[in-house]
Amino acid sequence: MFRKPTLLTRNPDNPVIRPIQFPDSHGDTADVVFNPGQTVFRGKTLLLVSVQFRNKPYAQTHVAVSEDGIHFEIEPEPCFSRDPDKVFGEYDNHPIDNRITRIGDEYYICRPGNSPMGCVGLLYRTLDFKTFTPIDIVALPDNRVPCIFPEKIGDYYYRLDRPYASGSADCHGHIWLSRSPDLVHWGHHRFLLKGFGNWSWDKIGPTVPIKTEKGWLELIHGVSSSCSVVSYSIGAILLDLEDPCRIVGQMKSYILTAEEDYEFNGRCPGCVFATGAIADLKTRELRCYYGAADTYIGLATGNLDEILDACLQGK
Amino acid sequence: MFRKPTLLTRNPDNPVIRPIQFPDSHGDTADVVFNPGQTVFRGKTLLLVSVQFRNKPYAQTHVAVSEDGIHFEIEPEPCFSRDPDKVFGEYDNHPIDNRITRIGDEYYICRPGNSPMGCVGLLYRTLDFKTFTPIDIVALPDNRVPCIFPEKIGDYYYRLDRPYASGSADCHGHIWLSRSPDLVHWGHHRFLLKGFGNWSWDKIGPTVPIKTEKGWLELIHGVSSSCSVVSYSIGAILLDLEDPCRIVGQMKSYILTAEEDYEFNGRCPGCVFATGAIADLKTRELRCYYGAADTYIGLATGNLDEILDACLQGK
Repeated sequence: MFRKPTLLTRNPDNPVIRPIQFPDSHGDTADVVFNPGQTVFRGKTLLLVSVQFRNKPYAQTHVAVSEDGIHFEIEPEPCFSRDPDKVFGEYDNHPIDNRITRIGDEYYICRPGNSPMGCVGLLYRTLDFKTFTPIDIVALPDNRVPCIFPEKIGDYYYRLDRPYASGSADCHGHIWLSRSPDLVHWGHHRFLLKGFGNWSWDKIGPTVPIKTEKGWLELIHGVSSSCSVVSYSIGAILLDLEDPCRIVGQMKSYILTAEEDYEFNGRCPGCVFATGAIADLKTRELRCYYGAADTYIGLATGNLDEILDACLQGK
Repeated sequence: MFRKPTLLTRNPDNPVIRPIQFPDSHGDTADVVFNPGQTVFRGKTLLLVSVQFRNKPYAQTHVAVSEDGIHFEIEPEPCFSRDPDKVFGEYDNHPIDNRITRIGDEYYICRPGNSPMGCVGLLYRTLDFKTFTPIDIVALPDNRVPCIFPEKIGDYYYRLDRPYASGSADCHGHIWLSRSPDLVHWGHHRFLLKGFGNWSWDKIGPTVPIKTEKGWLELIHGVSSSCSVVSYSIGAILLDLEDPCRIVGQMKSYILTAEEDYEFNGRCPGCVFATGAIADLKTRELRCYYGAADTYIGLATGNLDEILDACLQGK
C-alpha cells in the first residue's frame, strides 16, 4: 500500500499500549485507550494513560512506566477516577487528555473537567506520580485543554489554550495564549493560530511546548472532516522563545496522519492525537506517544532538527 | 390590558432614550439602541449607550449624562467605535454591552470583543469618561460579559462570568465566579447558577453586583424561548458578602419582563435586558436602565428592601 512520507516514523512494536493490558478484576474489559500524558520521570518514560471500560460510564487514568520507552508497566490502581467526594467533585467526571508539564522538580497536570456545567481546566501538581495535589480550576468552560510551558518567560508562566464551543457550527477551534503570575490566575489572552490546511481546517489544538535552541516546538493536532469521518493529524509549529505569541516557524504539512490498521480500527477511526512529546536534546530524538483511534497508544519518533528546520522552512 | 405585577415599575416618561436622539451627520439613522452601561459620575447619572446606524456594520458607544435621571444629554462623538488601529485591534469589532464597575475613584468598563476569532472580554479604565485606557484582554472566548465586583473581597477582586458556546444546542448559558489578584489575571473559577424557571430556562447572565447590607444584589437576565421568539427578562439573586459563591437569596420570579409596546416593537421583540443598576442606599431606590427590544432604553425603579426581601424569601 501507498504510505505518505512524514517526519515521524512509527515504532515497529506499535501499538505499544493496547486495551488488553487493562484487565478489570470484575470481568469487565477496556474498550478505549485514550492519548496519554507523557514525560520523563526519574530517567524512565512515564505515561498517564486513560482508559474506559465497557461497562463503566467514565474513564480512569493509570500511571505507566517504561525503561526502554516501548514496554510499559501499568499501575493496576488508577491514579485518577471519577470521585464526586474529591476536591473537584462534579467538575471532574471523566479524567482523560492529561497534559504533563515539568517545571523544575514539580510536575503539573492539566486536564479537562468534563462536568455537566461545561468543560473546565483542572490543574494538579505531583512530585512522585503517587500523590496528586489538586491546585484549582484554572480555565472557564469550554477549554480543552490548557498546555502549560515548562518554565517562566520573563515574570510570567504561559499556557496555550483551545477554548471552543461544543456542538457549534462555528466552533472557534483556535489556539490562544494566556499568561499567569502564579499558575492559578490567567489573563492577557491573545489569539495565536487557527486551522490552516486541508488536514487542520476544522479546528486545531495545542500540546505541551518543548524548549529548543530555535524556539518553543509546539506539536498541534489538526482536525478535518470528510463526508464520513473526522480525522485528527499531528502538525508542528515553532514559537519565539521570548515572545511566544510570535510564530517563527510553521509546517504546512502534518508530521503524522492515520495510516495503520490500529489507527483506523477503533473507536475514533482515522485519529492520531498527541498531548505532547518527549525530546532528547543530546541525541536529537523526538518521541511522541500518541492516541491511535482512541483505542491504542502508538510511538512515533523523529529527528528534532529535521522537524525544526521543516517548521522554519514552512514545509 | 392585563399587566403582570413586578417589583420594578416603569417610569412614565419611558422610553428615556430613543433612536431619534442619535442624528448622524451623513443622513444615516440609528435603528438600534442597545442596553446601556450605568453608573453615577460626579453626582449625575451616566450611561454608556451603544447604537447601530442603519448603514454602518458595527455599533458605537456614546456617553449620555443626566441631572434628573430621565432627560439625557448625549455626547455627539462616540467614545468607543470600531478601530482596528487601536490597542485591541480586530479583537474589538462591535462595542456593545458595556458593564461599568466603580472601584474607588476609578471606573472599569468590561465589554465583549466581538472578534472573528471569538468573543473575548475587554477591560478599560477611566477616571473622567473622556479618556479610556485599555487594560487587557481578560477573558477567553466565548464570554459575555465579565461583571466585576465594586471592591475586593479579602485579597482578591471577583467577577461573574457567562462563558458560552454560541450556536450550540447545549449552550452552557450559566453564571460562573472568578477571582483575580490584579484585575488582569483570573482563575479559581466556580460554577454559580444556571437557568431555573420558565423565564430563565434557556440561559442566564450576570450584571455588575451591588453591595447592600444583606449581600451582593445581583440582577440577572433570564432567557426563554417559545416557538416564535426568544424572550429576555430580569431577575434578582443575592450573594454572600464574604463568600460570593454562596447564594443566600434567589427570587423565583422575574422583576421585569416585556409588556410595553416599546419592549416589543423593535429589533429584539420581547426583550428587556440590563447590564447593571444604580442603588441609592439612603432613599432605598433601585434604578435600572434597561434595553427594550434592542431599540430603546427604559428606566424601571423599585424599592431596594422589597427586592432584597423577595430574594431572601425566594419569591
